[in-house]
Amino acid sequence: MDLLATLMQQLDAAASEIIRIRRELHQHPEVSFHEQWTAAYIKRFYAGFDCPVTDYGDGYGFAVDIPGGQSGPTLALRADFDALAVQEDNDLPFKSQQPGVMHACGHDGHTAYMMVLARTLWQLRDQLPGRVRIIHQPAEEVSPGGAQGMLAAGVLTGVDNVLGAHVMTSMPTGTVGYHVRETQTGRANFTVTVVGKGGHASMPHLANDAIVAGSYFVTALQTVVSRRVDPFDTASVTIGSFDGVGSFNAIKQNVTLKGDVRVMKESTRVTVRQQIEQIAQGVAAMFGVQVDVDYDDNYPVLFNDPDLTMQAVHNIQSANIPEVRAVTDVGPQDPSEDFAYFAQALPSTFLYIGCDPDDGQSHPHHSPNFLMNEDCLIIAAKAVGAAAVEYLQQHK
Amino acid sequence: MDLLATLMQQLDAAASEIIRIRRELHQHPEVSFHEQWTAAYIKRFYAGFDCPVTDYGDGYGFAVDIPGGQSGPTLALRADFDALAVQEDNDLPFKSQQPGVMHACGHDGHTAYMMVLARTLWQLRDQLPGRVRIIHQPAEEVSPGGAQGMLAAGVLTGVDNVLGAHVMTSMPTGTVGYHVRETQTGRANFTVTVVGKGGHASMPHLANDAIVAGSYFVTALQTVVSRRVDPFDTASVTIGSFDGVGSFNAIKQNVTLKGDVRVMKESTRVTVRQQIEQIAQGVAAMFGVQVDVDYDDNYPVLFNDPDLTMQAVHNIQSANIPEVRAVTDVGPQDPSEDFAYFAQALPSTFLYIGCDPDDGQSHPHHSPNFLMNEDCLIIAAKAVGAAAVEYLQQHK
Amino acid sequence: MDLLATLMQQLDAAASEIIRIRRELHQHPEVSFHEQWTAAYIKRFYAGFDCPVTDYGDGYGFAVDIPGGQSGPTLALRADFDALAVQEDNDLPFKSQQPGVMHACGHDGHTAYMMVLARTLWQLRDQLPGRVRIIHQPAEEVSPGGAQGMLAAGVLTGVDNVLGAHVMTSMPTGTVGYHVRETQTGRANFTVTVVGKGGHASMPHLANDAIVAGSYFVTALQTVVSRRVDPFDTASVTIGSFDGVGSFNAIKQNVTLKGDVRVMKESTRVTVRQQIEQIAQGVAAMFGVQVDVDYDDNYPVLFNDPDLTMQAVHNIQSANIPEVRAVTDVGPQDPSEDFAYFAQALPSTFLYIGCDPDDGQSHPHHSPNFLMNEDCLIIAAKAVGAAAVEYLQQHK
Amino acid sequence: MDLLATLMQQLDAAASEIIRIRRELHQHPEVSFHEQWTAAYIKRFYAGFDCPVTDYGDGYGFAVDIPGGQSGPTLALRADFDALAVQEDNDLPFKSQQPGVMHACGHDGHTAYMMVLARTLWQLRDQLPGRVRIIHQPAEEVSPGGAQGMLAAGVLTGVDNVLGAHVMTSMPTGTVGYHVRETQTGRANFTVTVVGKGGHASMPHLANDAIVAGSYFVTALQTVVSRRVDPFDTASVTIGSFDGVGSFNAIKQNVTLKGDVRVMKESTRVTVRQQIEQIAQGVAAMFGVQVDVDYDDNYPVLFNDPDLTMQAVHNIQSANIPEVRAVTDVGPQDPSEDFAYFAQALPSTFLYIGCDPDDGQSHPHHSPNFLMNEDCLIIAAKAVGAAAVEYLQQHK
Repeated sequence: MDLLATLMQQLDAAASEIIRIRRELHQHPEVSFHEQWTAAYIKRFYAGFDCPVTDYGDGYGFAVDIPGGQSGPTLALRADFDALAVQEDNDLPFKSQQPGVMHACGHDGHTAYMMVLARTLWQLRDQLPGRVRIIHQPAEEVSPGGAQGMLAAGVLTGVDNVLGAHVMTSMPTGTVGYHVRETQTGRANFTVTVVGKGGHASMPHLANDAIVAGSYFVTALQTVVSRRVDPFDTASVTIGSFDGVGSFNAIKQNVTLKGDVRVMKESTRVTVRQQIEQIAQGVAAMFGVQVDVDYDDNYPVLFNDPDLTMQAVHNIQSANIPEVRAVTDVGPQDPSEDFAYFAQALPSTFLYIGCDPDDGQSHPHHSPNFLMNEDCLIIAAKAVGAAAVEYLQQHK
Repeated sequence: MDLLATLMQQLDAAASEIIRIRRELHQHPEVSFHEQWTAAYIKRFYAGFDCPVTDYGDGYGFAVDIPGGQSGPTLALRADFDALAVQEDNDLPFKSQQPGVMHACGHDGHTAYMMVLARTLWQLRDQLPGRVRIIHQPAEEVSPGGAQGMLAAGVLTGVDNVLGAHVMTSMPTGTVGYHVRETQTGRANFTVTVVGKGGHASMPHLANDAIVAGSYFVTALQTVVSRRVDPFDTASVTIGSFDGVGSFNAIKQNVTLKGDVRVMKESTRVTVRQQIEQIAQGVAAMFGVQVDVDYDDNYPVLFNDPDLTMQAVHNIQSANIPEVRAVTDVGPQDPSEDFAYFAQALPSTFLYIGCDPDDGQSHPHHSPNFLMNEDCLIIAAKAVGAAAVEYLQQHK
Repeated sequence: MDLLATLMQQLDAAASEIIRIRRELHQHPEVSFHEQWTAAYIKRFYAGFDCPVTDYGDGYGFAVDIPGGQSGPTLALRADFDALAVQEDNDLPFKSQQPGVMHACGHDGHTAYMMVLARTLWQLRDQLPGRVRIIHQPAEEVSPGGAQGMLAAGVLTGVDNVLGAHVMTSMPTGTVGYHVRETQTGRANFTVTVVGKGGHASMPHLANDAIVAGSYFVTALQTVVSRRVDPFDTASVTIGSFDGVGSFNAIKQNVTLKGDVRVMKESTRVTVRQQIEQIAQGVAAMFGVQVDVDYDDNYPVLFNDPDLTMQAVHNIQSANIPEVRAVTDVGPQDPSEDFAYFAQALPSTFLYIGCDPDDGQSHPHHSPNFLMNEDCLIIAAKAVGAAAVEYLQQHK
Repeated sequence: MDLLATLMQQLDAAASEIIRIRRELHQHPEVSFHEQWTAAYIKRFYAGFDCPVTDYGDGYGFAVDIPGGQSGPTLALRADFDALAVQEDNDLPFKSQQPGVMHACGHDGHTAYMMVLARTLWQLRDQLPGRVRIIHQPAEEVSPGGAQGMLAAGVLTGVDNVLGAHVMTSMPTGTVGYHVRETQTGRANFTVTVVGKGGHASMPHLANDAIVAGSYFVTALQTVVSRRVDPFDTASVTIGSFDGVGSFNAIKQNVTLKGDVRVMKESTRVTVRQQIEQIAQGVAAMFGVQVDVDYDDNYPVLFNDPDLTMQAVHNIQSANIPEVRAVTDVGPQDPSEDFAYFAQALPSTFLYIGCDPDDGQSHPHHSPNFLMNEDCLIIAAKAVGAAAVEYLQQHK
């Protein structure tokens, strides 16, 4: 029996174990950069079969190296393990035991399938023509994210390519999704502080109303997308927080706005930033208020290497995984993802594993009602596993 | 020696007592509708000379009746006694002992001079051609204010006219100010709730951004004063609170705005309200959001009866009070004042007693650094006292 | 019979002549600075009784001096004679014969009554204790107006005070109106040119949309009155022209806005100008467009000297003119008036002569349907005449 | 020699004739729906070799049928022939002789190459396995365009597919461009009329300022693209004309805005229209003005049939036309094109023929300086000719 067939067989045998691990993680969610229990749990798993782990970065991230018995390339497989500050709203027997924290994005599933896949590859390591590095990454959910720290600490040293995957409730279970080139948006966040002059509501001429200045800022901001960005290009600019909380009868001295930017091109990122800063300067000049912009360009556009991606697609299709009904181009995706840092460093690809619960009530990621069809877990393990071993055989 | 001269002499003798009382009140400030200690303190003072007090309304308000020895009209004198939720910022020996609460508007002074004036009038009651009703009012600082409750309870039954006074740091100590007809602004407050649809910042088309709708509301609101109000008329519309607090990467589902309106004519009050409600409906139609306006028309325009006011001015001038250097028309005043309810019920007048500390650092009312020149206290007692006794003699 | 009685009698005798003259002028309206026929017509009238006229300024303005038989002060009486670029819309037998030009503001009436009053005073000149200078002014309707040129040419040399009057359809015929101190608004006009970059409507990112920048300018401009001006003060800011005329599918390169400002205080004039210029700079910074503001501070606030005004009011009341039913304080008036330049130079007063046609269809000044009740003409002659001769007698 | 080689050879022989015809047309431009001379000129050309023409529609459009000697499909080739209301600004010897009218979009070139191609195909008609219908279309530049009328008159009856081409200064001469599926934007145009109430600039409260309402409309309109359209989708909304022309001192009663919309999906067209109409209703409610929207959905999205397009691309590449250096996917194009109506009716394809003059001063289409490199003409003839004859041979 060839390597791929053996891998598939062994993963099938471990299918219920993946679910068990995922549920255990689900009960113990930890928010980004605080995943102490989670990291220890995963490391105990690896300790169970003497597989060495190496820490990377200041967070709880670490990697596991699976050296193949034959020479070949090094492929990194990445799974993230942080949870969100969301209060779970359901009656699952394995519901979060941590008030206000929940695995509402599926990272518990990412980690569970990857742990079992890693153990299986470890068991088959003599047959591997190359090396697999399993990257367990913390803190995907918050900027600056856990990827950068691991990268700075050298987690990709010696690695040739990186592969990652995300479960998706928006795609039917049984579907594996992909897209080539620009695939998930790049992101920036910014904080705008407007300082005017406080005063009594009955004497506006003696004050300088920061709420008025902030509101004009928001209306002018709409022109960035409507007038400055090529209609064929992609951008969004959102003010997600307008803090001008005060009282009825006092004119506000200062307001603080928090904003979010998404783009699909780095040149558009530059244009949008320039326009936002220009509008801030305009508001300052217009109303004689002080306007400070603290701008943080963070997650890059996630770029899926076309060759690597199409090779993975081909390998998954060729593997004839019974649970996979379709491998389809799902087009670009709105959210940002810090896997983009890996993809910036090396040719990489990021796949999507459909996990729609099929109960007619699919809830979006980050929702308190988020739910995955756990059938996606064995699909993820097999699809990523097949893509990995075939990659090693094709590049040896 | 005539009544006025006697009154002046006895007030002079009690000048330092007024200061002592004011400082004691200053140390024990209580916020509106919670003036339990203050009311008890004042009542103990009246108990000291067997002067009966009558409670009016649900708050701590009460009145003291001083029946004259001769028949004549009834004049009410009103003093308010609540403090503000302000943390006092100075090193006075009689600084507030209540953290976060301060007599930062001078109501301690109003009450102190009135108590001593009341006792003096009580002592001279045989000579009074008419009756004086001293109204100690709570809760002037917050809508709906203490005046309405006392009025509903009948505090003005049998009263012909009402006289009140306010210390003013914006006027030199030694000045008594007045204005006839519309003198302080009427007020309304409103709360606007905008409900859109939350969502992820990267997918604005699936959400309905309440911050955007709220911001356009604020910009459109500027037209109420700029286009709808006669340039010769007075109005201000302020959004004092814009609560759109959220996070960078989520589109806000709802925002809450709190607003303040000031006018000098009841017809303008109607126009402004109509326009605000119209703009709210416009924003709802424009953006497909739900916009609710909770509108509270509260303090009326304070109307000073011209005859009564000019009579008081004349009487104060004729009294030749040595500490009073000028009695001047100070024009209309921006803030609102719930004495306006008394003035709505009966011909009334509201005077201003300059209390600028003359140290080159006059701080506005409601400021943590608010300070009065205590010379204003004897001036208040004498001016109001002179106006009162001469009024009785002129109307007997 | 005394001077006043004689004057009244002679004016009564000339009442129908005033109407005849007014109608002749009405048929021959000429727009500001082009009043060639009108000036010649008036001069022919004065030539009829050998009364000398002196030209002042570059326009068609001139003055007539009536030296009194006794020594005394010099009082100037001013009447304007220009018409408007309005197409008259009625069937009057004396309708304008000049297409597109109309005496739609009543200056024909001002001139008619003044001519006859001047002749009457000329006839009575031996009895006058002082001198009257009749000022026939051109071009009141357009900035910079005819007053400034006449002033620069010395029309007020030797004059002590100036008196003027305006007919008003908003006041009942039979009423003489007045107000003291600030009485008509000061004015400024400005032109804002926004230059962006033209382009094709389908490619906004390659253009810079001047209509968008101009529109945000207009919305921000609302804050000048709503937030920068004391609610007790007066100001209006209007964009009367937004020229962004273009085609459906091209982005406009430039737009031109024309604006109007009214104030009642010179300090407010400064504030408003600063704010408008600041907003223009803000729009330039915000959108990266070029914004030029051409700002013209023109008509001053019209200030009626209190003493002179009240003296005139008293004199008109004392004259017991049968056609005058009331002399009332009409409050400040919205429009501007270049008589303000005379009032800036010397203590002056400007009165209002009610001319409501009483037919239930009073049309505002400058309307194509403007109509005056001609009874106002004899009232104007008598009221101004009485004020003038009594003034001379009181100041001799 | 095969059919293709013969066609290429004969076109080569006519290369200078195409240029001559194009220059003659260039000298005689006529605006849309007024192309009388142009149509007659083209018909004379066809009369020269007895080729019958058939009129279609109410305009000057007509078609020429070239029946092949063998049975096969019918392919329509479309060329447009109208010019623009632009004043040509150059010193070409064949400059427009019509003041204010210019072939500034290259339709003269389209017509010239098509005429010679048509004659050549006519001469080779015996060898054609199918039929070619040459469509000479008027009025491409203005909505509703000339295509609809010809379609309604049956110009595509019996036709299987349509092919068109446009010269493009933005692409290098020697390049043939294509794109599959949605290729040029769909368009809508709208006129917004805002009616308020006129008045004097000094009395805004008596008027209802249409310029203010129109300006807020423009600012709110920015949210359509910024908040309502999927960031991965395409839309633009432009106000190309803001007619609020008035005078300094009058408040405008009404303004008229003209707008342009571009989309790439019909569902987005619906969303954008709904939002614009909603914002118009919002402005009406907000300011109490009357707002009418006259909305005209016109040109559809131009959809290039993928199979037909890739077949044409393949055929042009296979033809090894020496002047064609590259056949490239140029992506979607911003402008709209009424060829979209043909593509809506039948599977069609629209190609681009690079015509950058290579002089470093390429001017955009519709510019007074528009210039094409005439080498594009023989390229257009050969590329379209090759695509046509190979199509016939492949579909016979």
